[in-house]
Amino acid sequence: MPQETIKDRPITASGVRRAAKRIAEHVIRTPLVENDFLNVAAGGRVLVKAEVLQHCGSFKARGAYNLISQLDSDETKRGVLAWSSGNHAQGVARAARHFGAPATIIMPTDTPKLKIEKVRAMGAEIIFYDRYTEDREEIAKPIQRERAMVLAPSYDHPDIIEGQGTLALETIDEAHARGLTLDAFIACCGGGGLTSGCATLLEEASPETAVWIAEPEGFDETWASIQTGERQRADVTRRTICDAIATPTPGRLTLPIMQRLVRGGVSLTEDEVGQAMVFAYKYLKLVVEPGGAVALAAVLTGKFNGAGKTTAITLSGGNVDPSLFAAILQRHGG
Amino acid sequence: MPQETIKDRPITASGVRRAAKRIAEHVIRTPLVENDFLNVAAGGRVLVKAEVLQHCGSFKARGAYNLISQLDSDETKRGVLAWSSGNHAQGVARAARHFGAPATIIMPTDTPKLKIEKVRAMGAEIIFYDRYTEDREEIAKPIQRERAMVLAPSYDHPDIIEGQGTLALETIDEAHARGLTLDAFIACCGGGGLTSGCATLLEEASPETAVWIAEPEGFDETWASIQTGERQRADVTRRTICDAIATPTPGRLTLPIMQRLVRGGVSLTEDEVGQAMVFAYKYLKLVVEPGGAVALAAVLTGKFNGAGKTTAITLSGGNVDPSLFAAILQRHGG
Repeated sequence: MPQETIKDRPITASGVRRAAKRIAEHVIRTPLVENDFLNVAAGGRVLVKAEVLQHCGSFKARGAYNLISQLDSDETKRGVLAWSSGNHAQGVARAARHFGAPATIIMPTDTPKLKIEKVRAMGAEIIFYDRYTEDREEIAKPIQRERAMVLAPSYDHPDIIEGQGTLALETIDEAHARGLTLDAFIACCGGGGLTSGCATLLEEASPETAVWIAEPEGFDETWASIQTGERQRADVTRRTICDAIATPTPGRLTLPIMQRLVRGGVSLTEDEVGQAMVFAYKYLKLVVEPGGAVALAAVLTGKFNGAGKTTAITLSGGNVDPSLFAAILQRHGG
Repeated sequence: MPQETIKDRPITASGVRRAAKRIAEHVIRTPLVENDFLNVAAGGRVLVKAEVLQHCGSFKARGAYNLISQLDSDETKRGVLAWSSGNHAQGVARAARHFGAPATIIMPTDTPKLKIEKVRAMGAEIIFYDRYTEDREEIAKPIQRERAMVLAPSYDHPDIIEGQGTLALETIDEAHARGLTLDAFIACCGGGGLTSGCATLLEEASPETAVWIAEPEGFDETWASIQTGERQRADVTRRTICDAIATPTPGRLTLPIMQRLVRGGVSLTEDEVGQAMVFAYKYLKLVVEPGGAVALAAVLTGKFNGAGKTTAITLSGGNVDPSLFAAILQRHGG
């Protein structure tokens, strides 16, 4: 993204709390689900933040509303431009429609059909690009210049990061209301917007909670970046079912936050992700997309050891094409 | 069911309220979900009581906890006997385990595997019967006599009916909290336990709400019974994907209540049910079994006209085998 468009300002827990007030009437306070079978499998207590029940089926509405609700009337008139593998696109499209702003979204040609269909249904213009050969930022630049649109980055922006952090605020408020202390919080991690916003909030609101990230094998460059202290890049020509979190590299704003606050990371294979999706299907009755199931897979595989702990996990998105879901049910449904 | 075991007493809204207090700590207050795409499809507002998120994946835990929590210590020691197509079985098994009562469940041999697996996991004994050739009540009698077990009928018992009615209490409380009046409430209807409990509560708490039932084609004997004033019987040798509500005939206790309070009924084909399941998958991110999707299908098909109305519907259960769900996604997933 063009560097000059990023508003550099501190990302704070109080910023997350302000975001929560700003978006309260626009987003769903999603349930924190607990399940017998999951607790037994983990050997502890697992609280599932069921963000698949959010508007548009993922947490992305949080950041999008937080950013777009703050545009002035001129900016709103010119509209917003975003690139997205499909979930951020829906969040932006819905928020833009709500505030009367035109929205243009740059999406990969191999985006799941369901995501394309839902973005279209909310009235956004879609420009497709080939994510294996083209650079979405190069496609965005002339459009942004000509139309003077506001960029709505999918993660590397303070308003987006603080918006996504509201997920952790709801989670910790609900856990405390049930008399629970969270030993750990596991985020499904792509560019790090969700993780860094949630970690920022938890540092203040629940310092005893260890923040972990779950990534797909081959796209685990965030944990590698945290460990090495240098921004690593994933091989984005690699195919993955976890399209939602197949980001090339962690964000310029998100990585330093994650380096400071993330305590551990695990990588999940596609089979482990598929098994977690089937578990969610059978026992939680929730439809989860591959990229939204990695944190659940971290607990179910034991790669994150939840024994004796109280752990919150994000089920961060549920937009998966029926044909892929059917294939995963047939492969792992038993 | 042996007639002498039914406690005949009035079924009342205050009984539902007492049941709600009794079971509050044991059941999940499931979310009332609203969705852009569903509202557009209905041309009105649709509130979805997502009971697939209840313990064991259906509303049946409500009645089971209400009945079993009231057993005295002798009864608890002797245990409970139930017959069930699989959802009531899970509710009874979980409640029995919680109160330390043995549970024996009589289930059809063609029960979905997922339901059998979950009943077993909760420690209940299962006795299988062939529902096309055998009579479950005849199988139950000697067992009940020998072990002096308490019968936990799947619908025709005041404690069960009032327990299921708590679903409507939560629905109307939540609707009122949002400033909404319910024009209609549509229940997925098998033996009528859920419908009659909810209708009883709504008569007192929301008399302006018209109660409707949705049934599968071929098992729409309840609406036929209400219309004719005589208990009709379905042809139970007919195969159906809606196993949860493929009951032979409405209950002795439930039918009079429904005759007095139910305003309309619709029948859904298996294709319409499959399409509703795919809609719930795509837009609500909820896994719904065929028998739990008939009320949603009633709205989506327009067989119930929700235009300009605020309508609550029950998504009453979500226990469906992966192979059937995969087949339905492939057939109707588009």
